[in-house]
Amino acid sequence: MSDITIVGSGHMARAIGVRMIQSRKSVQIVGRNPTQTQALVEFLGAGATAATDGDAPEGGIVILALPHSSALEIVRSYSGQLSGKVVVHISNTVDPSNFDQLTIPYGTSGAEEAAALLPEDADLVKAFNTCFAGPLEKGAVGSEPLDVFIAGDSEDAKVQVSAVVAASGLRPIDVGPLRRARELEAFMLVIMGLQVNPQHLHFNWDTSLKLLP
Amino acid sequence: MSDITIVGSGHMARAIGVRMIQSRKSVQIVGRNPTQTQALVEFLGAGATAATDGDAPEGGIVILALPHSSALEIVRSYSGQLSGKVVVHISNTVDPSNFDQLTIPYGTSGAEEAAALLPEDADLVKAFNTCFAGPLEKGAVGSEPLDVFIAGDSEDAKVQVSAVVAASGLRPIDVGPLRRARELEAFMLVIMGLQVNPQHLHFNWDTSLKLLP
Repeated sequence: MSDITIVGSGHMARAIGVRMIQSRKSVQIVGRNPTQTQALVEFLGAGATAATDGDAPEGGIVILALPHSSALEIVRSYSGQLSGKVVVHISNTVDPSNFDQLTIPYGTSGAEEAAALLPEDADLVKAFNTCFAGPLEKGAVGSEPLDVFIAGDSEDAKVQVSAVVAASGLRPIDVGPLRRARELEAFMLVIMGLQVNPQHLHFNWDTSLKLLP
Repeated sequence: MSDITIVGSGHMARAIGVRMIQSRKSVQIVGRNPTQTQALVEFLGAGATAATDGDAPEGGIVILALPHSSALEIVRSYSGQLSGKVVVHISNTVDPSNFDQLTIPYGTSGAEEAAALLPEDADLVKAFNTCFAGPLEKGAVGSEPLDVFIAGDSEDAKVQVSAVVAASGLRPIDVGPLRRARELEAFMLVIMGLQVNPQHLHFNWDTSLKLLP
């Protein structure tokens, strides 16, 4: 049984997988594409195993390393299999066609949309959405460990996620209730907007949002 | 004639005043309270002069170092005297009674509310709202210069503000149109929330939001 399940096999799954394996957690990678999933498991090495969409999530912590719409689909299809789990929503809700608006209405967040679909005894935690895959895989920008802003309504779930984040060499910052995910997600209009803005060629998905010191 | 007018004589007026004077700009401090205004001018030293509410703003750049409601009042009372000026809105719109909601409706920002009251040939720029007075006065947290996130609809006005910010030893980051002020202001629910949260005793209005590297 793996400690942590990561659903997804893309850049963010890889980055989070590297962090988790480096902190000596065992990781189950659940991917839609068996070839890509297997390649990621081989890249991660000892401690990583592959599973497919139909398999039950093994980890007590289930990280949805997916675009928001896919995260909602997975929560719906796992349904009762997420009972008792801590589910981590990392997705952003910035419209990638213009980086100028969100894909969700005012007054909610992607994280809250996902939380509403969970079994009653599962807890959702927002984390990692301000981290880009490149710096996250390295764990730092320069000599500064990445900050991971964490929001959620279950203190126990946030403590579990914070412990895993800290063990992987990052700095967890509990920013409060799950509704703070609204601001964590919306601020990525600013941060992602900078990455794609030709005026800022030095920002290229390699930045890290830090609260100093 | 001063280069820059700062309206206000509180912590943020002092911090911005120190930065401006250090970059060899002359500064007119416009304050409601003559004693406090005079004390700030004396603290700032050569290059700083005092004025009162009734006096015309001298600077081509007018920085409203005030709470948002007072900023709106000043814009209304200056009215045509702001013609041709670059007006800088630094205020936050976090409700200080709970740090859990904004004092403005969804779909706008304090900066946009102020911009709507300006003469047609004045331009508003959002800046400094993610900076706290303590680190801003020093200009850095540790060895890292502060980032100043700047939003506005006039490229020329943003270039002027960015030049002044850079000259004062800070890093200006143009994040796009004035509507990005919505996310700059809303994210302070996260950042200010951390300062007042007893769970985070090490965050005490002395932090600095940075985009590394």
